[in-house]
Amino acid sequence: MVRRGIYPGTFDPFHNGHLDLIQRGLRLVDELVVAIARNLEKTPLFTMEERLDMIREATAGLRGVQVTSFQGLLVHFAAREGITTVIRGLRAVSDFEYEFQMALMNRKLRDELETVFLMPHEAYSYLSSRLLREVAGMGGNVRGLVPSSVEKRLAEKFPRR
Amino acid sequence: MVRRGIYPGTFDPFHNGHLDLIQRGLRLVDELVVAIARNLEKTPLFTMEERLDMIREATAGLRGVQVTSFQGLLVHFAAREGITTVIRGLRAVSDFEYEFQMALMNRKLRDELETVFLMPHEAYSYLSSRLLREVAGMGGNVRGLVPSSVEKRLAEKFPRR
Amino acid sequence: MVRRGIYPGTFDPFHNGHLDLIQRGLRLVDELVVAIARNLEKTPLFTMEERLDMIREATAGLRGVQVTSFQGLLVHFAAREGITTVIRGLRAVSDFEYEFQMALMNRKLRDELETVFLMPHEAYSYLSSRLLREVAGMGGNVRGLVPSSVEKRLAEKFPRR
Amino acid sequence: MVRRGIYPGTFDPFHNGHLDLIQRGLRLVDELVVAIARNLEKTPLFTMEERLDMIREATAGLRGVQVTSFQGLLVHFAAREGITTVIRGLRAVSDFEYEFQMALMNRKLRDELETVFLMPHEAYSYLSSRLLREVAGMGGNVRGLVPSSVEKRLAEKFPRR
Amino acid sequence: MVRRGIYPGTFDPFHNGHLDLIQRGLRLVDELVVAIARNLEKTPLFTMEERLDMIREATAGLRGVQVTSFQGLLVHFAAREGITTVIRGLRAVSDFEYEFQMALMNRKLRDELETVFLMPHEAYSYLSSRLLREVAGMGGNVRGLVPSSVEKRLAEKFPRR
Amino acid sequence: MVRRGIYPGTFDPFHNGHLDLIQRGLRLVDELVVAIARNLEKTPLFTMEERLDMIREATAGLRGVQVTSFQGLLVHFAAREGITTVIRGLRAVSDFEYEFQMALMNRKLRDELETVFLMPHEAYSYLSSRLLREVAGMGGNVRGLVPSSVEKRLAEKFPRR
Repeated sequence: MVRRGIYPGTFDPFHNGHLDLIQRGLRLVDELVVAIARNLEKTPLFTMEERLDMIREATAGLRGVQVTSFQGLLVHFAAREGITTVIRGLRAVSDFEYEFQMALMNRKLRDELETVFLMPHEAYSYLSSRLLREVAGMGGNVRGLVPSSVEKRLAEKFPRR
Repeated sequence: MVRRGIYPGTFDPFHNGHLDLIQRGLRLVDELVVAIARNLEKTPLFTMEERLDMIREATAGLRGVQVTSFQGLLVHFAAREGITTVIRGLRAVSDFEYEFQMALMNRKLRDELETVFLMPHEAYSYLSSRLLREVAGMGGNVRGLVPSSVEKRLAEKFPRR
Repeated sequence: MVRRGIYPGTFDPFHNGHLDLIQRGLRLVDELVVAIARNLEKTPLFTMEERLDMIREATAGLRGVQVTSFQGLLVHFAAREGITTVIRGLRAVSDFEYEFQMALMNRKLRDELETVFLMPHEAYSYLSSRLLREVAGMGGNVRGLVPSSVEKRLAEKFPRR
Repeated sequence: MVRRGIYPGTFDPFHNGHLDLIQRGLRLVDELVVAIARNLEKTPLFTMEERLDMIREATAGLRGVQVTSFQGLLVHFAAREGITTVIRGLRAVSDFEYEFQMALMNRKLRDELETVFLMPHEAYSYLSSRLLREVAGMGGNVRGLVPSSVEKRLAEKFPRR
Repeated sequence: MVRRGIYPGTFDPFHNGHLDLIQRGLRLVDELVVAIARNLEKTPLFTMEERLDMIREATAGLRGVQVTSFQGLLVHFAAREGITTVIRGLRAVSDFEYEFQMALMNRKLRDELETVFLMPHEAYSYLSSRLLREVAGMGGNVRGLVPSSVEKRLAEKFPRR
Repeated sequence: MVRRGIYPGTFDPFHNGHLDLIQRGLRLVDELVVAIARNLEKTPLFTMEERLDMIREATAGLRGVQVTSFQGLLVHFAAREGITTVIRGLRAVSDFEYEFQMALMNRKLRDELETVFLMPHEAYSYLSSRLLREVAGMGGNVRGLVPSSVEKRLAEKFPRR
């Protein structure tokens, strides 16, 4: 049996904490679908195409990774794709509560989809896409926190002053 | 002496966790005012009238419940209505901090109004109106999480695809 | 109908945060039983008799307070005494989790017994009996943190050096 | 490749929250070793043999479960047994911090051993072995919280008064 | 060597919890720069000039306080100003996680800038600028929570009904 | 004016997270007293003399560090020694609550003694003396987590099997 997992997120932008989690997730499943949730309400910094490209570039060397996007409920997408495991990172207590609420709702909506939580490397425990956007937007150096292709694109969006 | 309590909220929409809390609150007070706070800044999913109707329908069989709306500070409304107890649900740590901040401010504004916290049934520990709006908005099935009249109205707002 | 509540604890020793909570609890119930749990495993600083005396002295001016001890499960004692409400204080997140676990277990054991949580005055948010024993045991001044009869007895247990 | 996981614990006693977690863990791994940690310092309520028996009885119908005990560091035992995944339950914020500390230490000691966290069913979010020992020890009814063989043995340890 | 610290914030409006923290911070550093972060995205209740004036008035009697504004990254501003210490208040767990994330990112961006956390007086543990804006906006009395010059300006913004 | 700080603890044993915190603390004060609290109730793994030696060895290269022990209340010791600042590390939410309780009590006992909290390097966020004792006691390798003199002494206490 092939175990398929999903790592859902917004990835705006993708960073090294995400990459670390994908590598950990690949120890649990044979195929891991990295899936960008389309959110019609928010305007992202990077378009869906840019985000798909950045994740594909960063995960090019990893066996078993597929990168895609989805719309609507995660449980519906997972059912269509034969996915049995949702992989999420837990960094902090506030993560914990939001994640548990989502996981319990997903369990109510589709009991056979199990959510598993992994800890990112402690070097990335302070990283978030929102914080990266803020720091890069104010001219901060994000080298070492994002893959090089993301670093380049952030530099294009926010030319250093 | 008649003990009057208030259960304030936005109730957009009302769900089974709210209903569970009202039933618990009725063990503490003789009359419980379920009071929808008018918030001029946010556009709710359901109008004030719809929300009043949904709560009245869901609590029709419960003795001692009054359903109304209020504007302005809770402590001013409570003073006018002879209310001595505020009833709030606590599900999680993040609730806890927000709720304590509000309760301490209300105590500073009106010391004779006591806030009491109740635990909802654990089956509803993952429920929130925001999450219900999201799930229903993406076509998820919310049966068992909301009273039937709310389920019907959510289905009208978000026709299943 | 007379509403009876219980405020259970070890009270070793009783302090001003406990007294504050009893005063708040009396707003919710007509009779409040302050009940010292007998714990056969731990050796308390103050004997059961000393603790009963100290609480009786500190609450002498409050109408509706009864002071007693109990052994075994709280739910069994509450059932025998016609008690419908358990009153507990919540100071911090760590309280919250322990208290919720206890309250959920008590609900499983006896569904008609409701636990309500109250916030102590913020001046007592750092007080605990354990900390008071430590501070008094090392010669610290606990005036203002405990009723005067408790202060006197602590001074007898731990003569100032 | 056969994926082997470990679910370590003290299981004193085993309860339905543990059983729920084993069933969830079996979705992630092909073989799950339920491993009782020998702790020379604490005197458990149930002997190692009793605990092994209780877990074997409760998991008799589950394919892929092995029940054993181990001494010393989890990472050493996992290395000898070809185990790649540690499975742990997360119920609450306080669990979260202790579990993360252990998982980070285990990662430092053996990087190829990944710890994954699962949420128990919300019906068991208040269960702990310590609380069960207390409740059963004071004559409380624990039916529905433990497998029937554990219920019987608790009744033998603590004859109802 | 003169130790320079910074106390950054939005201060919309400045309140007594901020003032308390400045007084504590002055025990640690010789000069404390109270620095209002310019945030181009949000529209504050009080203009930058009003906020600078309010803080200057409230801190007029304190030796070693400078009040200014800054744009861009805190670490860049601190480097230009010879500042070695960032002072932040911690009131609650939710503060804790946000503050740690910021402090770890700032440490990554500039390792020689150390963030230190101080506890405000417990009387201000429930105060936040957002809550003050809400309460004052609905006609609540904020006397004792803000300096008198802030109280006057809030009354001008929100004439009592 | 010379600023004197204290970094109190049990240090059983001293580890790299403690060392990291001392280095950060030296940025805030001119002299930092590392002070081992004598606790008559617990039997430590290392004697007071061993712990004083280990800390002296590990901090030998740091200017402004003094290593000593004290008995009784921290506030009394600080008053005798002309100390104005207590330095404590915060790693996690559970630390936070215990530390705040201690700091608030110390403030009540001696208002002029300010407690400041620092974040250890994230590489040490999972380290605690208790965990080190457990891991070393079961034959785990603690290289990189403790100074070399501590590693040697742990190896003597717990010969590798």
